[in-house]
Amino acid sequence: MLFKEIIKKKRDGFKLTEEEIRETIKKYVDEEIPDYQMAALLMAIYFQGMTHRETLHLTDAMLKSGETVNISIDGTIVDKHSTGGIGDKVSFIIAPVLAELGLPAVLLSGRALGFTGGTADKMESTGMKVTLNEKEIEDVVKRFGFSISCQTEKIAPADRKIYALRDATSTVESIPLIVSSILSKKLCVNTQGIVFDVKVGSGAFMKTMEESEKLAEGLVNVSKLYGKKAGAAITDMNQPLGRTAGNAIEIIESLNALSGDISNDLLEVVTTLTGILFKIIEKGSFKEGKEKAESIILSGKALNRFCEWIEYLGGTTKLQLGKRRILVKSDKEGYITEINGETLGFLIIEMGGGRKRSGEKIDHSVGLRFFKKIGNYVKRGEVIGEIIYNQGDETVFVNRFLSAFKIEKSKPESVKLIKKLIY
Amino acid sequence: MLFKEIIKKKRDGFKLTEEEIRETIKKYVDEEIPDYQMAALLMAIYFQGMTHRETLHLTDAMLKSGETVNISIDGTIVDKHSTGGIGDKVSFIIAPVLAELGLPAVLLSGRALGFTGGTADKMESTGMKVTLNEKEIEDVVKRFGFSISCQTEKIAPADRKIYALRDATSTVESIPLIVSSILSKKLCVNTQGIVFDVKVGSGAFMKTMEESEKLAEGLVNVSKLYGKKAGAAITDMNQPLGRTAGNAIEIIESLNALSGDISNDLLEVVTTLTGILFKIIEKGSFKEGKEKAESIILSGKALNRFCEWIEYLGGTTKLQLGKRRILVKSDKEGYITEINGETLGFLIIEMGGGRKRSGEKIDHSVGLRFFKKIGNYVKRGEVIGEIIYNQGDETVFVNRFLSAFKIEKSKPESVKLIKKLIY
Repeated sequence: MLFKEIIKKKRDGFKLTEEEIRETIKKYVDEEIPDYQMAALLMAIYFQGMTHRETLHLTDAMLKSGETVNISIDGTIVDKHSTGGIGDKVSFIIAPVLAELGLPAVLLSGRALGFTGGTADKMESTGMKVTLNEKEIEDVVKRFGFSISCQTEKIAPADRKIYALRDATSTVESIPLIVSSILSKKLCVNTQGIVFDVKVGSGAFMKTMEESEKLAEGLVNVSKLYGKKAGAAITDMNQPLGRTAGNAIEIIESLNALSGDISNDLLEVVTTLTGILFKIIEKGSFKEGKEKAESIILSGKALNRFCEWIEYLGGTTKLQLGKRRILVKSDKEGYITEINGETLGFLIIEMGGGRKRSGEKIDHSVGLRFFKKIGNYVKRGEVIGEIIYNQGDETVFVNRFLSAFKIEKSKPESVKLIKKLIY
Repeated sequence: MLFKEIIKKKRDGFKLTEEEIRETIKKYVDEEIPDYQMAALLMAIYFQGMTHRETLHLTDAMLKSGETVNISIDGTIVDKHSTGGIGDKVSFIIAPVLAELGLPAVLLSGRALGFTGGTADKMESTGMKVTLNEKEIEDVVKRFGFSISCQTEKIAPADRKIYALRDATSTVESIPLIVSSILSKKLCVNTQGIVFDVKVGSGAFMKTMEESEKLAEGLVNVSKLYGKKAGAAITDMNQPLGRTAGNAIEIIESLNALSGDISNDLLEVVTTLTGILFKIIEKGSFKEGKEKAESIILSGKALNRFCEWIEYLGGTTKLQLGKRRILVKSDKEGYITEINGETLGFLIIEMGGGRKRSGEKIDHSVGLRFFKKIGNYVKRGEVIGEIIYNQGDETVFVNRFLSAFKIEKSKPESVKLIKKLIY
């Protein structure tokens, strides 16, 4: 079949077969299919969608364009993936907690994307080694019961090539393309259970419940078709998660959290995801998993494991933050009704804590602290946060910080942090 | 605005501005916009469509990527364009007839496309010069009152580049893209009135009335927005037009037709299109135009003009047909209910009378003759047509010819040749 016939088939709303999808990815990676034909297919997929089964085949083909990671270890290997947000340091808390519960957790994480933070970047603020090969990951999991490392270039190269094309052709916002992109870099590890934290709100890629539900269902169903146990939580990202956002500052918050000093929202997300994992891999009930995770965190039991893991990989837990600090005072009186994560994410990039272009060096020491949450009442002049930076225009930073806060007369409805569970 | 933002705008169903469209075409021709981004935009247009005004801007931008043709002559310059079919020799009849009626006709024609025949190819069977520059066209119109010549490479180069990309990316079948492609090569001539013959049926690109109506409305409305008088007829192409299909053989049929020996269907189409032109340029009523065209054709008045035109450009009217001939006999008894033009078009290509690849040399002397039309009753063994060829497998040709004919027990409804008039 000529490739233009495959484009036409999708354009006209038909399903592509496993073989058609496999050939497409193979030939695209081998440069037998040019970018312009792939771009047309991607736009046709944007409009016509793909079934979960087509998405499975696409995921599998992209995954097989690269290396897989096979870890030999006793126990049920688990994974947690977040679709990205502001202040999201869940991986650093949940991985050692799962290890403590006897569940080896193997997470492959990415760099910051768009306005959101990246787990691998945060890890680098400690100076630790973040890119590990299969053998190294296995060694780390055996020692610490968990491993978090950066996706290498050898994982799903087809996804990298397709993602660059999607970015240039406005075909990023397609559920099957997002699902296959995420899963091609996740299902390549021999995990048995995976839980997805699908973020929704101003600080997430998915701004509406409808979109985030579709994404969560896609991630869970395609993972199941692939033979994994899978579940998901849709969680609120209409304000940053926890007390800080940045790189080093989020590692510091994670150290505090693991010692028991944890914000309610962060605790709720970590324990909920653990509950889902318990249920899907049939280790226990949702409630059991949730309670056990909470007890470990509040007791501070998992802290040492986390610190030793950082140090084993050459990092330090004694992190330096930026030299300059400014407390931000509210310019209005009233209830906080929104804290826009996208605005804050771009502020961090502006301060040097994120990349404007891929490959740029970042300043890990800058960051933001939040003293208030949605629903809090603040007076004019009351301190609501702190900006930690090294250089740049303080006034610009403060104004940007304040612009993320919506402050209104009437009290907002309370935020529902855990919006939906799928398991 | 980044080009990917323009793709996104169209993808999300918004209208593009004149400037956005002009910049897009300019930058695409200048290779500042790569094929893969253009392919994504074309697929987005396929799904979201374009308003007539957007199509006007697209047409104008493509037209201005090349040369325009300005003919200085007294009178109202007119044009006729067909969307392509089998046995369509209307241009050769109508152009000298319009000249006879005092309407200078300037037609820029193309090569065969897909399974359909091409006016320029048919002209070449006489040995005449088919590619003329502006000065030569003007000279020819002044001498003969009409000119038919082949589109040059200098006409709308943006269209050629975009058409090749559409062909490779399955984005051909989009009304605004078809309209702008046709019009960018038509409106570049300083004609005042243009009539479109939009073919519908098995031997046309548009198989349904719905599609052909959209195309006709697009062609007429965008031409009007461009400041031209415009009208259209939707005419039947569920069987070949006239008595023959091929290259030299259609020129021979045209010579006969202009001498008064014309098939009813061909006469009806030519006179209807003339009637529409009369009406739209306000030279007279539809009926008046139709009747005058018929009287000229039946009297044979326009024949000499046509022969002299061919000879002036170095051609001959004494055409040779293929050396081998076979009469095709019906293999069934009953009423003819369909004569599939696409099948016949591909048979002509198979016989050497069309191109499998662009640029191929063709054998002008091969062709088909049809002795029966839809609604005729035929007996088994009755001769229904003739195949004229030089080489190849006779049995294959005969079977292909017969496969185009559907012969059934019950008499079909009579074919409505002129399906709709738009003026």
